[in-house]
Amino acid sequence: MLKQYSFNSLTASDIEQLIARNTDATHAIQDAVSQIIEDVRHRGDQSLRELTLKFDKVDLETLYLGKEDIEALAKTITRDQQRALEIAFQNIHKFHSSQLRRERVVETMPGVECWREVRPIEKVGLYIPGGSAVLPSTLLMLGVPARIAGCKEIVVCSPPQQTGKINGFVAYCLQLLKIEKIYLVGGAQAVAAMAYGSESLPKVDKIFGPGNQFVTKAKSMVQSMTNVSIDMPAGPSEVLVVADHTAQPAFVAADLLAQAEHGPDSQAVLVATSADMIQRVNDELQKQLDVLPRAEIANMALQNSFAVEVNSLQEALDFSNRYAPEHLILETDEWKKLLPSIINAGSVFLGHLTPESAGDYASGTNHTLPTSGYARSYSGVSVDSFVKKITFQHISQEGLTHIGSVVETLAELEGLHAHKNAISIRK
Amino acid sequence: MLKQYSFNSLTASDIEQLIARNTDATHAIQDAVSQIIEDVRHRGDQSLRELTLKFDKVDLETLYLGKEDIEALAKTITRDQQRALEIAFQNIHKFHSSQLRRERVVETMPGVECWREVRPIEKVGLYIPGGSAVLPSTLLMLGVPARIAGCKEIVVCSPPQQTGKINGFVAYCLQLLKIEKIYLVGGAQAVAAMAYGSESLPKVDKIFGPGNQFVTKAKSMVQSMTNVSIDMPAGPSEVLVVADHTAQPAFVAADLLAQAEHGPDSQAVLVATSADMIQRVNDELQKQLDVLPRAEIANMALQNSFAVEVNSLQEALDFSNRYAPEHLILETDEWKKLLPSIINAGSVFLGHLTPESAGDYASGTNHTLPTSGYARSYSGVSVDSFVKKITFQHISQEGLTHIGSVVETLAELEGLHAHKNAISIRK
Repeated sequence: MLKQYSFNSLTASDIEQLIARNTDATHAIQDAVSQIIEDVRHRGDQSLRELTLKFDKVDLETLYLGKEDIEALAKTITRDQQRALEIAFQNIHKFHSSQLRRERVVETMPGVECWREVRPIEKVGLYIPGGSAVLPSTLLMLGVPARIAGCKEIVVCSPPQQTGKINGFVAYCLQLLKIEKIYLVGGAQAVAAMAYGSESLPKVDKIFGPGNQFVTKAKSMVQSMTNVSIDMPAGPSEVLVVADHTAQPAFVAADLLAQAEHGPDSQAVLVATSADMIQRVNDELQKQLDVLPRAEIANMALQNSFAVEVNSLQEALDFSNRYAPEHLILETDEWKKLLPSIINAGSVFLGHLTPESAGDYASGTNHTLPTSGYARSYSGVSVDSFVKKITFQHISQEGLTHIGSVVETLAELEGLHAHKNAISIRK
Repeated sequence: MLKQYSFNSLTASDIEQLIARNTDATHAIQDAVSQIIEDVRHRGDQSLRELTLKFDKVDLETLYLGKEDIEALAKTITRDQQRALEIAFQNIHKFHSSQLRRERVVETMPGVECWREVRPIEKVGLYIPGGSAVLPSTLLMLGVPARIAGCKEIVVCSPPQQTGKINGFVAYCLQLLKIEKIYLVGGAQAVAAMAYGSESLPKVDKIFGPGNQFVTKAKSMVQSMTNVSIDMPAGPSEVLVVADHTAQPAFVAADLLAQAEHGPDSQAVLVATSADMIQRVNDELQKQLDVLPRAEIANMALQNSFAVEVNSLQEALDFSNRYAPEHLILETDEWKKLLPSIINAGSVFLGHLTPESAGDYASGTNHTLPTSGYARSYSGVSVDSFVKKITFQHISQEGLTHIGSVVETLAELEGLHAHKNAISIRK
């Protein structure tokens, strides 16, 4: 089932190949996206209407739904479903609320006070994928930290359903977030509209959210073309599961399949301390695949996945850190000991009863995470992603006497005399 | 001297123009940088030697200096200069040490525990500009937070002096930072080497540091071509000074000139509550320019700068937030009242005795800051820039009973049955 390797017999270049992600040369996509961006930039709403007709097959009169529409749609889902979304909302809110704290003032020298204060990014744009897989959970994962940060304007874009509306789950999440408008625009055109603004859509300062290759390419292009920033670069989703002899093969297989069903380009990696465990997981994969509605997609993803046999949990972590997975699941009794060894990962799931799907939806952590090895240098989305930390400083007369000559000396050695004079003139 | 506008008579489009930064279409630069990147990528050290000979006119045998060279060079500066660098180091260290704190575990539901832990980015690359303006202060501003974060490998690149070495100030800072090697490579080729690695230079996970247009373009290109990330996009440096009737025109002028001397494309903006203050600052600018060594550069930058007369400090802050300056100086007795109104700025200097040059060198705050309006969505460099915050979660048997059905309901409504099964199989 899963291609199988033994860590001991891998060369350095084998490992390089295993940890490399699929990167496709997407010139065709780049050209198409570039055209869309230019068109939206110059023709605004008119272009958005035409592109929505072309790609989503919906002819829109107004490009958004307002409060009443959202209220009506939110009523179309069951009370149980509402309740589940509410609990997810509460848990995400509770966890993310803990992320921002007031920082103290540091007196670096007598009379020289420095500190940081948090300010929201004023205008943020949230892209919520639509079409076949509508993801209300993504709206909660982006909307909750945006609200906690205090962003003044939260622009939400999502492609319209065939009805010209959105589904009830997304509508209910909008209500939970107290967002009263949603723009019915998807794809690269949504990203372009948020980057440049149109008659209906406000330009934003930062764009968040996952999407298909067109959305991803558009985000990366507007990042380099405008002064709008983006949450992070995005690639296909991935999981790495570490399993030792205490692992339950059925649980491991279920977790690998939960990743694999996302899309044919998803990657599910198993790192196990014995060949026997890999065999047992493979057997379970086959069994569970047989009854899975999205079996075809999952199967394609598994072709693209692999298992590595290692000699110890430490070796498993070594490989994992090199791979830098978006999701890391440690299915071992020994998880506590391993925590300090985890260096590169987006989000980590500990023990036998902590599946990734808990964090995907409802435990409270964010599911917008760095993929494709970006976990080496990026964190997942958090309240931090929706704020700036501004440094402030105040120097008193006393402070100036302490720091003045230091600054003068340093400015002089860098040959910047006006910098020096800004001190001297005040003394 | 400074072009002068009155806020009241500005139209919306006038303001758009004033807050827009110079963005030059740099296709020539892009092509040159693209060639350099490809050459370094394919020919490694050999290419780095050739490009260093071409651009820096230095023929290098080895591409770096080691511990002994650094020690010897560090001895060539005076004790006073060493002392000034030490104090700057200490203040920067003290302030940045306060930026990382352990976060608490949040139990979002009974038995569902979520938290974040900080991990260093393992391999970071610091670019220190060289040539005519060598900036040891930049090495401290990047090296100190990298050390506090605990980065395992800190790769420093700086173009060689004509001697084939580095200057003593940079050497002394390397010693303070306990960095025992510096690569004598500058420009786009340094960025390419850190992004792809070469025989001598290790590939890094994230590249930091300011530089000329070639360096900046190279950073933005490797960001989109590889999975190496960068600190932030960079543009010319800028300051916005708010002055009311309590301001000292001589101090204001000194601060504007300290910005202007950076380069002809720097921008120094004055926002004053009276035309009279603008006049008096203009007079002072002329007076101080006359005795400034870098007067020619400063003069060119002032051509590119302007003053805005406003009716109140609140109006001044409104304009400042729209401009989103890298540096904001509030030369008014009323600075304390204004703090909550500051939304978009990189670093803020408060009162009459807090010149920007204090923060540029020695007060403790970082001088690597967002320019060109990026302060709307970016923070300056801090220890945060050198770490990831990884989320962890652990769910107990009790936790699973609380969260299980919520996850199952949400997975089902998104049509992801393997996600649901990862819960069900554990119940």
